[in-house]
Amino acid sequence: MRTHGGNIYNSTEMLDFSANINPIGMPDSVYHAIIRSAADCVHYPDPDCVKLTTALTDYEHIAPAQIVCGNGAADLIDRIVRAFRPERALFCAPTFSEYAYALQGVGCETREFALAPEHNYQLTDGFLSAISDDLDMVFLCTPNNPTGQRIPAALLYMIADKCRQYGILLVSDECFLRFSEDAERYSLRPFLYENCIILNAFTKLYAIPGLRLGYALCGCAGSAERIRQTGQFWSVSVPAQAAGIAALQEPDWVSKTVRYVAAERQFLTDELRQAGLTVYDSSANFLLIKAPADFADRMKKHNIIVRRCEDFSGLTDEHFRIAVRTHAENHALTAAVREEYK
Amino acid sequence: MRTHGGNIYNSTEMLDFSANINPIGMPDSVYHAIIRSAADCVHYPDPDCVKLTTALTDYEHIAPAQIVCGNGAADLIDRIVRAFRPERALFCAPTFSEYAYALQGVGCETREFALAPEHNYQLTDGFLSAISDDLDMVFLCTPNNPTGQRIPAALLYMIADKCRQYGILLVSDECFLRFSEDAERYSLRPFLYENCIILNAFTKLYAIPGLRLGYALCGCAGSAERIRQTGQFWSVSVPAQAAGIAALQEPDWVSKTVRYVAAERQFLTDELRQAGLTVYDSSANFLLIKAPADFADRMKKHNIIVRRCEDFSGLTDEHFRIAVRTHAENHALTAAVREEYK
Repeated sequence: MRTHGGNIYNSTEMLDFSANINPIGMPDSVYHAIIRSAADCVHYPDPDCVKLTTALTDYEHIAPAQIVCGNGAADLIDRIVRAFRPERALFCAPTFSEYAYALQGVGCETREFALAPEHNYQLTDGFLSAISDDLDMVFLCTPNNPTGQRIPAALLYMIADKCRQYGILLVSDECFLRFSEDAERYSLRPFLYENCIILNAFTKLYAIPGLRLGYALCGCAGSAERIRQTGQFWSVSVPAQAAGIAALQEPDWVSKTVRYVAAERQFLTDELRQAGLTVYDSSANFLLIKAPADFADRMKKHNIIVRRCEDFSGLTDEHFRIAVRTHAENHALTAAVREEYK
Repeated sequence: MRTHGGNIYNSTEMLDFSANINPIGMPDSVYHAIIRSAADCVHYPDPDCVKLTTALTDYEHIAPAQIVCGNGAADLIDRIVRAFRPERALFCAPTFSEYAYALQGVGCETREFALAPEHNYQLTDGFLSAISDDLDMVFLCTPNNPTGQRIPAALLYMIADKCRQYGILLVSDECFLRFSEDAERYSLRPFLYENCIILNAFTKLYAIPGLRLGYALCGCAGSAERIRQTGQFWSVSVPAQAAGIAALQEPDWVSKTVRYVAAERQFLTDELRQAGLTVYDSSANFLLIKAPADFADRMKKHNIIVRRCEDFSGLTDEHFRIAVRTHAENHALTAAVREEYK
């Protein structure tokens, strides 16, 4: 069974803390771009996403030939793995489950590097020893889902360098990075060697998960072309392309988001710790917590959905992921927690 | 190079006869459903497409467990092939190129059954002899893209039966079938054995190619589950699910479309034949024609795009596909043809 947060379709009127979507919502300009695009849906989408790619070139300062757009980051994970068909791959545990899912789909042997709760699940230099010459692919997620920790730039550099030496494809999933402060200091972007790919998404930052839009920045045009040739011809819909172009024109969206999320993450962390729950430090727009196993059920009584984490390798039925939502929603959550754990 | 019709993004103000989209356009109800769905894009799509599947169950009279929705029929072709990983597969030539593309992507040996121009590219009983015991998969397309011919029910039954005996997965692509008269008499639906899958799309009939929405009807729930488990988790966007639900509530859309297309197809056929071009009989919303190799260039002078067919196996640079458009557009095309070939 594949499980993810954000499935609100079998419940009614719930506060959804299970999906890690921007609490300040969707920019108005994006909303209007979607509406304006409705009439254009009578045409096939541009298979090459030329306008969106041009906008991304401006935004990310990278050549169009190194950009691939997809039907959400999940589509790109799947296509990258199929394009390169690795035989042995490494990733952390716990982490986003779609890497393992995609890798196992091509019969790849997967190796896990266990993140230690006693180090707050922070990736450590020990990861370097786990990068062996027989690997074909390494997946990183920064900040890591569901633990919320970023990889320090120095370590990221050493990982990229070692992967380059060994000819290993390094994929860094940075879908949540722009929610965190000083994001550019934690990106693989300065070390985007030929063997590297950065994954990014509009989904979370611009609150359009329903539209499906992600992109990959590739260290070389050859990798990008290989991914483009894998999978369906028209992967990105007309509304998604329109929404992406509008989103990139929002100058203050990222900084506004970062400020809001930082304040609310602190609020949630403090309140949940005061209620006696274990909250791991996070740099993302979500928190991993440790709580009694009935925590999710107790929250459900208050019409609150949280993400159970027992299906993440390395976590248990006492781990839960909580999105940073609006202040009113976060307040509702902490009130419910106080009531249950007083 | 993968080529398809409908790429209007490197040209301006052209009449597009290269994409086979319903000439009567998108139903108003679908347009409004897309617009209403814009605000819901802040949520992840329902990965199980429960509401849409329920609507399809009513429409297609088949259990929800046997239905899989996808990001357009092209997404489903890709996922079906990856889910079953055939080693040897058979399809017609010429036909829609995505079958071969998907099959070659999993290293499948592909065999082509040549359709004969002297028989108007009609599939004949000879196809039965081409179905051998060592095959794993057979793709049919009815009406066939780009030739426009349907498979007679008796032959379709014999193909399904032989595939069942040999344990071959039979995929019948019926994306264009509802554009034709008496469609139900030509569908695999009555012979949807356990080894059979029917592909269908909203894209063409409801003129929403920009949204990406297709579905597969599977002969057994096991096949459906296998396809569902292959590929990305959230394949169908929020607007696409909303549009599909609205489309299925349009009671007269299909009959209105069939009447309009039949009349305009006849008009186009007659006019093009009068101009001295070879037009193959078609039951679809498009026509395959044979014309001098510079036909597409000549049409371009009149701001008309047609589909060059030289990349279809079995066709040449003298073959072109022309969509049946609105009467005004068809008139513009025939006027241009008359001017060029007087």
